Amino acid sequence: MSTWRDNVRKVIPYTPGEQPKEKNVIKLNTNENPYPPSPKVKEVMDSFDTSVLRKYPDPAVKDLVHALAARYGVADDQVFVGVGSDDVISMCFLTFFAGGKNVLFPDVTYSFYDVWASVYGVPYKTVALDADFRINPADYAVENGGIIFPNPNAPTGVEESLDTIRAILDANKDSVVIVDEAYVDFGAASALPLVKEYENLLVVQTFSKSRQMAGMRIGYSIGSPELIKYLNDVKYSVNSYTMNSLQIATGVAAVEDEAYFEECCAKIMATRERSEKELSKLGFTFPKSSANFIFATHETVPAADIFAALKEAGIYVRYFNKPRIDNYLRITVGTDEEMDGLFEFLAKYLEDK
Amino acid sequence: MSTWRDNVRKVIPYTPGEQPKEKNVIKLNTNENPYPPSPKVKEVMDSFDTSVLRKYPDPAVKDLVHALAARYGVADDQVFVGVGSDDVISMCFLTFFAGGKNVLFPDVTYSFYDVWASVYGVPYKTVALDADFRINPADYAVENGGIIFPNPNAPTGVEESLDTIRAILDANKDSVVIVDEAYVDFGAASALPLVKEYENLLVVQTFSKSRQMAGMRIGYSIGSPELIKYLNDVKYSVNSYTMNSLQIATGVAAVEDEAYFEECCAKIMATRERSEKELSKLGFTFPKSSANFIFATHETVPAADIFAALKEAGIYVRYFNKPRIDNYLRITVGTDEEMDGLFEFLAKYLEDK
Repeated sequence: MSTWRDNVRKVIPYTPGEQPKEKNVIKLNTNENPYPPSPKVKEVMDSFDTSVLRKYPDPAVKDLVHALAARYGVADDQVFVGVGSDDVISMCFLTFFAGGKNVLFPDVTYSFYDVWASVYGVPYKTVALDADFRINPADYAVENGGIIFPNPNAPTGVEESLDTIRAILDANKDSVVIVDEAYVDFGAASALPLVKEYENLLVVQTFSKSRQMAGMRIGYSIGSPELIKYLNDVKYSVNSYTMNSLQIATGVAAVEDEAYFEECCAKIMATRERSEKELSKLGFTFPKSSANFIFATHETVPAADIFAALKEAGIYVRYFNKPRIDNYLRITVGTDEEMDGLFEFLAKYLEDK
Repeated sequence: MSTWRDNVRKVIPYTPGEQPKEKNVIKLNTNENPYPPSPKVKEVMDSFDTSVLRKYPDPAVKDLVHALAARYGVADDQVFVGVGSDDVISMCFLTFFAGGKNVLFPDVTYSFYDVWASVYGVPYKTVALDADFRINPADYAVENGGIIFPNPNAPTGVEESLDTIRAILDANKDSVVIVDEAYVDFGAASALPLVKEYENLLVVQTFSKSRQMAGMRIGYSIGSPELIKYLNDVKYSVNSYTMNSLQIATGVAAVEDEAYFEECCAKIMATRERSEKELSKLGFTFPKSSANFIFATHETVPAADIFAALKEAGIYVRYFNKPRIDNYLRITVGTDEEMDGLFEFLAKYLEDK
């Protein structure tokens, strides 16, 4: 038996939510936005000169970096762009968590964090959320090699206040602290105003949810110029050109269409409020969501059963068979019509139970 | 002074060739193809329904994997796709070179290899090419943790025969051997026919050169199903969705337009033959190129001087200030018109010397 396999890195990868091929399903399992991207994105696509594709894209992604810097009121050298926020966070694990000390993140959180830790050999320790899925900042006042958590948290949708984040930052001047704000645009407070106070704070956001562009793969992070420089050095050590010419051009168009962005976020928040009421009536409970999904458990029927019945009916939600959360469903907020389809099925299904 | 910097991975990144912003330059510095992508790529772009961008792309990139498998006569599970061949090779360093033993590659080669080794902590040893920039396969018959080399080699353009590659493979059943064929479509013999004989051989190719799509970032590798599975496991541990919906759709269109691909490659090879003659007349020598560039040195004038003069005149070629090759220029083969512009300038410049 050849021994080349001895040199192979063997990992247990992250499992993304299903992308069903059938039409006519109600897809509420991957926190996608139910609305199309800004019409400005279509304009860019329609007028795009494909002959430029023969050339490499701008490795510094300057146009998109500049559009984001202008939108968020920071300098261009405070912005880093990647292939979705997953690419950005992956680079962060490689760049900022290389000290050999335990990196801290919540026990109930985005299930990619431990996968990145594993692939890059980063030691980590999870910190238990309280019974209401909340962070106690005092738990993070221990020696560590870095901290990362989503806000609002995934898959719970729970928002932590800026006071909590500030308390974590104040206790951790010697660590890079990353706030993963994939879902922040649906009503939560961003930590971006704290970036000018804390040189070790990095905020990560994405176009996948609030800018309707999951299929285009654009994420970014904002922090001090020093953090961004370190991140770029590692990026240029992995792949000089991560962003293609179309991602750059359509990304700029999406960022600049603020009105459309706000309109779609408002619609999703309105549907979320209505959905929370409907789910309550159906016997579900959930922490108050600040994201584009609701993390719900039913008073009598096991989540795994509901998940299977929904799937059978062509309604996809997400179920995590993991400690503490194996009786919950993560339900993406879709259009009002999609949610009505869900509620209608659930009403009938739960009545028969 | 805060100590968060102690946890940062500090690296010396790869420096990509310049992407000048000015128009009217002759750009022969990054081995781009002078012709636009297939007209089929434009058709896909023009008819693309941007509303699908709200959804995540297919993480398995099935359509493009299948198109490549059909084109190269392999099974779908023998194909891996990434964000340019740089992304593919980066994943390879992370996946296959994790054994802690020295990875081998030539001393004169693609200057990203040692950067990937460094960012992922892979030990390596370079193996000297002979005076004609050729590989001696016996040099690779030593204990190692993996082997990688480009064929044709970069930046020399020198092609190694399949006999040489077979000799390396026969001496290295216990290592993953990666042949980086970014430039293979300009007349060299691919190692792909050897994949069915050697389960430890991985061949990497790209859309950036021979398919005119550097700006779209598409690369791929072909090998045994086991190698591809390991690579996918690591990919799903880094970023589930590396390829966006447009890369997938336009990539398929480009692969399927075989006639256009062959036509453009033939044009470049014809221009290369002519350019070699012109450069000889101007006093340059070079190894016979099997790539879309010529690696040339002048009999009397230092390469650094010529490089600076060309740049001043708006003609960009690549110069590497590195041992053994600091008197060479790497000149991409452009259109006949672009090459004429180069020869015209050189004739005048060298006359004045």
